[in-house]
This record gives sequence, structure tokens and C-alpha cells, in this order.
Amino acid sequence: MRVDQLTTPALLVDLDRLDANISTMGAAWPGARLRPHVKAFKSTELARRLAQHGHRGFCCATVREMEGMAAAGLGDDLLLANEVLDTARLGALVEAGARVTVAVDSSPTIDAAAAGGVREVLIDVNVGLPRCGCSPDDAGRLADEARAAGLAVRGVMGYEGHLVGLEDRAAREAGVAEAMALLATAHDAVGGEVVSGGGTGTWDSNRWITELQAGSYLLMDTAYGRLGLPFEPALTLAATVISVNRPGGWGVADVGLKALGMDHGNPSIVDRPRAKVWFCSDEHLTFGLKDAGEVDVGSRIRVQPAHVDPTVAYHERLQVVRGDEVVDTWAVDLRGW
Amino acid sequence: MRVDQLTTPALLVDLDRLDANISTMGAAWPGARLRPHVKAFKSTELARRLAQHGHRGFCCATVREMEGMAAAGLGDDLLLANEVLDTARLGALVEAGARVTVAVDSSPTIDAAAAGGVREVLIDVNVGLPRCGCSPDDAGRLADEARAAGLAVRGVMGYEGHLVGLEDRAAREAGVAEAMALLATAHDAVGGEVVSGGGTGTWDSNRWITELQAGSYLLMDTAYGRLGLPFEPALTLAATVISVNRPGGWGVADVGLKALGMDHGNPSIVDRPRAKVWFCSDEHLTFGLKDAGEVDVGSRIRVQPAHVDPTVAYHERLQVVRGDEVVDTWAVDLRGW
Repeated sequence: MRVDQLTTPALLVDLDRLDANISTMGAAWPGARLRPHVKAFKSTELARRLAQHGHRGFCCATVREMEGMAAAGLGDDLLLANEVLDTARLGALVEAGARVTVAVDSSPTIDAAAAGGVREVLIDVNVGLPRCGCSPDDAGRLADEARAAGLAVRGVMGYEGHLVGLEDRAAREAGVAEAMALLATAHDAVGGEVVSGGGTGTWDSNRWITELQAGSYLLMDTAYGRLGLPFEPALTLAATVISVNRPGGWGVADVGLKALGMDHGNPSIVDRPRAKVWFCSDEHLTFGLKDAGEVDVGSRIRVQPAHVDPTVAYHERLQVVRGDEVVDTWAVDLRGW
Repeated sequence: MRVDQLTTPALLVDLDRLDANISTMGAAWPGARLRPHVKAFKSTELARRLAQHGHRGFCCATVREMEGMAAAGLGDDLLLANEVLDTARLGALVEAGARVTVAVDSSPTIDAAAAGGVREVLIDVNVGLPRCGCSPDDAGRLADEARAAGLAVRGVMGYEGHLVGLEDRAAREAGVAEAMALLATAHDAVGGEVVSGGGTGTWDSNRWITELQAGSYLLMDTAYGRLGLPFEPALTLAATVISVNRPGGWGVADVGLKALGMDHGNPSIVDRPRAKVWFCSDEHLTFGLKDAGEVDVGSRIRVQPAHVDPTVAYHERLQVVRGDEVVDTWAVDLRGW
């Protein structure tokens, strides 16, 4: 099937770009050194491709992602890099044979892990981002508490998410060094083999971790484009122009707020880069005809979302494309909670 | 089941508020005078409740919504209030016995309707919003063209979406009068019994239409709150606090970008109205502990999204609640395209 035969809006993954991104990252972080973050793509088919490239340990953000990965036979080493109190579903995965590790950063999350049947944890350490993670000073105490509750403590994790978007490379490097020094302090107190952290934005500046948690590099956000990273945007949407108002100077395509993550702003039209996006409605994108080239009702356009992760979460499937050919369809089967 | 036993994040509909909104609107726009907009809730169960209140004609924004409504036995009079070129699926609904009307605003959309097996159309007229709709002057010509193509023209539609959020009532009324004068001109040229338009924001200022297309009033956006409308917000999310950082002064709940429509900005915490939302990540909401009252790991909070429609589209189900009791669960079964 050709891309222009797809029902629109359709979410497209450029397979050659995806594979190039996998290879580039895999050369620097081979095998188990990389723990790809499933939240960035929510598809067991894409995860399977990573496993075929030697990455068999994965990182998840939700219990549903953990369940789906285990059900797909990708449960060799699943880390829920997030705090959770509702742990019985994780215990069921352990029972069924998956290796499950969960992040903990407090007594209640430790108690929940133990009570739910989870056996392994990482101590989640706050390294500067105002989100989850204990104080570095508190990590040793929590590790003792976890061990006393019968849990194996595999090590620590800490996400320098406040730094991954810093455009100034020197500032980014200095920030990462400082954040990872906090994580190292915590690791000294905690013990274990794992120091997990990082992300796409710090893939080549974080040299302190034993495994990189990166997901965005696969489909790649435009926001990261300013960092000069070697990963290429691989996600677009095919849309159809359904209305053209020549006197008014605008066109309307059938892709809107419910097909696009909007927290980073409007999408762009990649195959008509000089065309201006005016606004999005639920199921519409209104754009200026000026500088858009030839546009008629029925014209296809290619739209790039401003934020990949919440875009993917709106869609049931990824159409895998090479040029204008649809070569495969992958279910986005890890949505929901 | 009680709300605090639900897996979080969970999307909640307050049934009493929903019913109050249905009654208030139904008193002003009874039966077929109201054509509720399915895009605002994407659930056939909620649509069935509207049908039980006498509203058996519905408005949809996508072909998938049309298909799901027909499959649920709610196909008495379905309007796709949107332009579409991929019409074969609509023709299949007609074959299966649904009444299908589609908006057209150009020769290609008329041709597509006829070719796809659609039998009835409305001429979609642009009344000021830079989106779909023909020029009012062109409506008569398009109606002739549609009839020549064998289509029954039921009338016109025109959506004054540029006016529905105007806070100044007099300005809103004047704008609606002007927009509807354009629609009336078009209707004179087109003929037919239907003049369809309006929305929640103009429910009591649009006196020119034969049927109101309104959906937001059911679950109600906070943005409309400024208009002083008599509809109450009925949609919230239950979330769990998963991490608390007292020295830093923040808490983290398990509801983020993938559970919230973000194009209108951050959500609010309705049961802790003085607490400040700092930011949302994919699966997290970070908020200030200051003025948040007592917060511990495990505390439940209630979050109100800034925009209802794209929030609902992220979720598989609506939990129907009365106070703290979950009294029903409705599938959000009209997602996708």
C-alpha cells in the first residue's frame, strides 16, 4: 500500500530513519548498556525491533506498559522507572515469570512493592528535576529499609530531566556532572550493580551511569533538534486537505488536537516548510495558503508534531513506511494505564 | 466500588452534573432541536443517555464516530459535520440502514459523497471561522451541483466557532446575528428544512437555527466558565500522589500529558484549589505543597483538565460517579479515525 492510500490522519514511522537512530545509539550504548524507554513509542513491535538489536532490558512509565511488554515476551528485564502504589499487577507479572524492577523513593512505595509481590527495586534519587526521587542523603536508609522488607536492591536511578534540553553543551555537561555526582553519592550508600539514568539529550554527556534510559531518540522530537544530536525525526502524520478557502487564504487538513500532542505548541507541515500553521481544532489544522505551494481539496500533506510521546498516545497504530510505501503496521498496544 | 479504589489516573464523570446539564439544555432545545456533538465525549453509552432524553439526531466529527454510533443502534439521523473525501465507509453505513448526512463545501466533497454512496448532504457555509465551509454566495451553486449529482440537500450548516468564547455578551450576540445573517442568505439560495449550527457558547444567543450542534455543555470546559453559562463542569480525573518532596516543597501525582488535553494549558487541582500546578510530564503532575493542605504519598487528588475534548480522547473509559461511588463505567468507544 502507498502512503497516499491510507485513511487520514495516519501516524507514520520512517523505517530507515528509525533504524539509523537505533544504530547510532546502539553503537554508543550497546546491548544491556541501553535500556530503551517504552513510553516514547508504546508499541511492542517497535520494542521487539530493539530487542533484535540486542537491547533486551526496557524501561516503562506505567503498569500497563509493563504488562504489555511481559505479555509480548519482552519481560527479560523490565524496569518501571516510576513510583507506584498499586503494585499487585506487577506482582502478577513476577509470578508469571517476568523480571520486574520498580523505582522506590519513600517508605510507602517500598511497602507497596513488597506487599504487591515485587522482588527487586532501584532507589530513585532526585538529582535536580522537581519530580520523583529521594534526597541523595536518604538513599542509603531507604535501601536498608527495602532490604529489611525482603526486596533485592539492584542499585539506583536518577533522571537529569532538567538538563536534557539545555542547548549550551558546556552547561549541559557541567550540569550532568553535578547531577551524577549526587547519584554517585547515593549509589555509594545504596550499593548494587545498577546506576540507571540519562536520556536522549544527555546520551553523550552522561558518562557515570551503567545504563542509559533513552526513548526519544527513536522517533525524535524537533525540540531536541536544537541540541545538534545525530538522531533524525522519524515520526510524521499524513493528512488530507479537506477544504480550501482561496479568498481567505487558508486551507484545512484533517489532523487536529486529538491526533497531536500539543503541549509544545503547534505542529509544522514538513513537506511545505514555508507554510504557516494558523491553529488546530479537534479534528482540523488550519494553515495559510501563502508559501504552501499548490494545494487543492484532496492534496496530502505531511505534518510533524511538536511533541512525539503524547502524539503517539493518541493513535491505535503506527504505519511503518519506506519512502511512499507502507511496509508494515505496528499496533500502539501499550496505551492506557 | 469507591472512587478511591480506582486505578489512577481515572477519568470521572459526575452523573448528577451531567444529568443537570442534559436537562438544562434539553429544556431550551428539546428533542430534535438539539443535535448533540459526539466529538465532545466519544462514548455511545453517553449518547444513549441523550437519546433516552429525546435527542436521537447526533453530530459527529469523524467517520469512526459515525460508524460507532450506527453500530450502537444510534443511527436514526447522523450528521458528519465535517468534510470528508474517504466516503466509502459512510456509504456502507447507509447500506446498513443508518441515516447519514455529510457536510460538503466544494465540488470534490460533493463528488466524493455521491461516489461513496452517501445520499444526503448539508451545504457547509463559512460564517466567519477560518475553517471549513463555502462562501455564502457560493452555497446555492453547490446545492444545485449536489442535486445534479443525485444527492438530497437537507439544508445548510454554519458554525460560528469564532464567537463561542466571546466573553462580552453583547458582542457575542451581535456577532452571532451577523454570522447567522450570512447563513440565512445561504439558506435562501440552498433551500431545505435544516439550518444547523451553534455551540455551547451560543446556546442562548443563536435564535436563527433549526437545530443546535452542542457537545461541550455535557462535560463542560472551564474556559466556558467565564461566559456565565448554566452548565457545570462534570469531568475530572482521579490521581494518586506518588512522591512528596517536603524540603523542595512539591508533590507528584500520576496524571500527565498523556491523560490530559494540554492545548489550553495546565490542569487545576479542584479539591485543593489553592495549590499551584507547576508542570506536567508524560505521566506526572508536579504541584506545590504550599496551600495544598495535607498531602502524603498515597493521597488522592482530583484534577480538572483545561480542555475536555482532547482529554477524553486519551482514555479508554469514563468512570461514572455519584459522590464517592462509581455507579457505572462507559467505554470511550469512538476514538480513532
